[in-house]
Amino acid sequence: MDRDEQAIRTRIETWITATKAGDATTVLSLMADDVVFLVPGKSPMRGKSAFAAGQDAIKEFTIEASSEIQEVKVMGDWAYAWTALTVAMTPKAGGTTVKRAGNTLSIFRKSAGTWLLFRDANMLAAVPG
Amino acid sequence: MDRDEQAIRTRIETWITATKAGDATTVLSLMADDVVFLVPGKSPMRGKSAFAAGQDAIKEFTIEASSEIQEVKVMGDWAYAWTALTVAMTPKAGGTTVKRAGNTLSIFRKSAGTWLLFRDANMLAAVPG
Repeated sequence: MDRDEQAIRTRIETWITATKAGDATTVLSLMADDVVFLVPGKSPMRGKSAFAAGQDAIKEFTIEASSEIQEVKVMGDWAYAWTALTVAMTPKAGGTTVKRAGNTLSIFRKSAGTWLLFRDANMLAAVPG
Repeated sequence: MDRDEQAIRTRIETWITATKAGDATTVLSLMADDVVFLVPGKSPMRGKSAFAAGQDAIKEFTIEASSEIQEVKVMGDWAYAWTALTVAMTPKAGGTTVKRAGNTLSIFRKSAGTWLLFRDANMLAAVPG
């Protein structure tokens, strides 16, 4: 496997591990300042600062997540990755677990030798818990 | 504007025009044989033949569509495009128009000098008509 492809796979695994650990600092270190997140039914979320602003709400939940990488393609200093992602969120105060699953298609960009998430299409939908 | 970027923008416009005209042959000519379509709540749809198989059902509808290209980035023989897409489908036999809107993130691949859709993430969600 190509060294850049392995680096991107490691970034995706780190994202999942840090998300489950509630480690927002590490998650934020994996994305470009001008990242854009696209999800169904919402306007694009632009910028690392917008993502950071949502992290306080996330802290109220225990998060389980798993990612199956379907494809990684490196194109010089750019790459895309397709994953099948499952995320389950349970309120720490108690309550119902909400489970979502679906595909993601992400663009990564190599900046100063480091691969950063640049564009992210998230097609997760609610599934039975 | 870069010649390849212009070519991809033209492909996206042709897709919309052909979709509205019910011209499945032209739409199919814009995608790779091994294209993959990703949407919320469904398994990946793999291959031009799977897309073609769905075209008969589409023929029963009048389709209005518009696409606002947000970004096109060319990386050699690869490219990605982000669009804001709106699609309204009305049964030709009469009935309610269903309108969907949202973002798309697509990977294009240049093959024998022609840009073809290779991966497509579609985040359209129902909106009030």
